[in-house]
Amino acid sequence: MRLDVGTCRALLTGAEVARLATTGADGQPHLVPITYAVRGEIVIIGIDQKPKSGYDLRRLRNIADNPRVAVLADHYEADWTRLWWVRVDGTATVLTDGAEREAAVADLVRKYPHYRTDPPGGPVILIAVDRWSGWTASDPAGR
Amino acid sequence: MRLDVGTCRALLTGAEVARLATTGADGQPHLVPITYAVRGEIVIIGIDQKPKSGYDLRRLRNIADNPRVAVLADHYEADWTRLWWVRVDGTATVLTDGAEREAAVADLVRKYPHYRTDPPGGPVILIAVDRWSGWTASDPAGR
Repeated sequence: MRLDVGTCRALLTGAEVARLATTGADGQPHLVPITYAVRGEIVIIGIDQKPKSGYDLRRLRNIADNPRVAVLADHYEADWTRLWWVRVDGTATVLTDGAEREAAVADLVRKYPHYRTDPPGGPVILIAVDRWSGWTASDPAGR
Repeated sequence: MRLDVGTCRALLTGAEVARLATTGADGQPHLVPITYAVRGEIVIIGIDQKPKSGYDLRRLRNIADNPRVAVLADHYEADWTRLWWVRVDGTATVLTDGAEREAAVADLVRKYPHYRTDPPGGPVILIAVDRWSGWTASDPAGR
């Protein structure tokens, strides 16, 4: 059954890993797992470590080409009556510095204890949610 | 560290859930969780149940527009030294009937006991792998 927006937001907020899909000018979708935080109608994604190539990451190049992105969290277990997923379709912007980036990093640090000693040092992706979608195999009230 | 093709294939083969990203003509990436099977350089994705709308699914419309797709499996746990992910970038075709579709459904039934009594009845997506990518936070030999 379809999930309402409040349930979608609660499930995405509570999950620990999701995936980010971006698509650049060449039309090839790109997928990476992400850590993230949810603040109202915004999804915040940090970039953890400076890669050898600097921050010239495919996800950032794709967003520069095309800011439309999707984020998905899902739950799988052998009991298929307990499956669920939540998707955000949204519009991404990238923050490389400033107070808004600092506030977003603080949200990530609050969610993940791992970041307390080593907060994400790179650009931060902010996704403005255009649409929430979600599905569960059975009534969430029964979970 | 980056994973070699054989390790990528083994990890994807062994995982139970992955995610499919497709992008249609409008440039909006679409993401859904998938069950799937791996046969060599092919990823097989079934469509389980006939939705109310028939098989006019976004993923199928997007593939008709643009056959370039991505599939991602990942592992998350609180111990971030144990994270890994595997991605396939590939080219999708859709089979609606015939012997090749039947063989693909048989692969799905072999992997998922759930399908033994209720095999996927819809179209089957075959993804020809163009590229394997994978990453692990630590040496896979040490896992």
